[in-house]
Amino acid sequence: MQTLLIASDHAGLELKTSLQKLLPQYKWQDCGPTKDGKVDYPDYAELLAKKITPTALGILICGSGIGMSIAANKIPGIRAAVVENPIAAKLAREHNHANILCLGARFTAPEYAAEMIKAFTEAQPSTDPRHENRIKKISTLEKPHA
Amino acid sequence: MQTLLIASDHAGLELKTSLQKLLPQYKWQDCGPTKDGKVDYPDYAELLAKKITPTALGILICGSGIGMSIAANKIPGIRAAVVENPIAAKLAREHNHANILCLGARFTAPEYAAEMIKAFTEAQPSTDPRHENRIKKISTLEKPHA
Repeated sequence: MQTLLIASDHAGLELKTSLQKLLPQYKWQDCGPTKDGKVDYPDYAELLAKKITPTALGILICGSGIGMSIAANKIPGIRAAVVENPIAAKLAREHNHANILCLGARFTAPEYAAEMIKAFTEAQPSTDPRHENRIKKISTLEKPHA
Repeated sequence: MQTLLIASDHAGLELKTSLQKLLPQYKWQDCGPTKDGKVDYPDYAELLAKKITPTALGILICGSGIGMSIAANKIPGIRAAVVENPIAAKLAREHNHANILCLGARFTAPEYAAEMIKAFTEAQPSTDPRHENRIKKISTLEKPHA
């Protein structure tokens, strides 16, 4: 059973709950928030991103997915992808070795978001040296004064 | 006349050319590539991101927009947003103070991409303290050992 970390802001809270019900085939680790009330997406992006491991992928949800992706990508080792379709979710994992999928609760219905999560987790990171070399170049950008 | 920096990888080269023709109302600074042939998206993301100023926004194009956004967001001060619709483009600028818009040439037709660029550049970053505070928290994540 694959572990998936999940977190949101207030705008993504309802979709976060729905996805865990729609996709019982994953072992969910809900990183919050647990109740209504305004929160700041960078706090939850950081909290989840720092728990990512090679075997635990993450899902971050805000209104558009964009704020979460910007914040999460600031953390070294994180490659967070905003997607609005399952092909993008698959390509994000295969070509960009994304380890966090970012979803926009304002744009994506729960069932369609579930399809994107399945496409993301079922895809395998490509071992094509072209793609691997690009991932290495991203890592270089993470070093101070790159 | 607003300055827009633009760059792509090989997958985004054709859309990069089309957008400059479709949107003559901007002053374009084309950061490459200038000819066909495989390139690595992190190289062009870095090249463009390091030229962003408060008055010069950027457009980055690859197959999905995702690789470009991951790489660009590694650069301090950059907030790069992958979008597939004009509302997301507007929100990225207003709520997330995005300074780079990332487009996926595999998913977005030239005319629709042009609408997203217009929505992005015409929007104003919100001065609502809620949003500004979240942007500050993103900046904190950029500092080493945040």
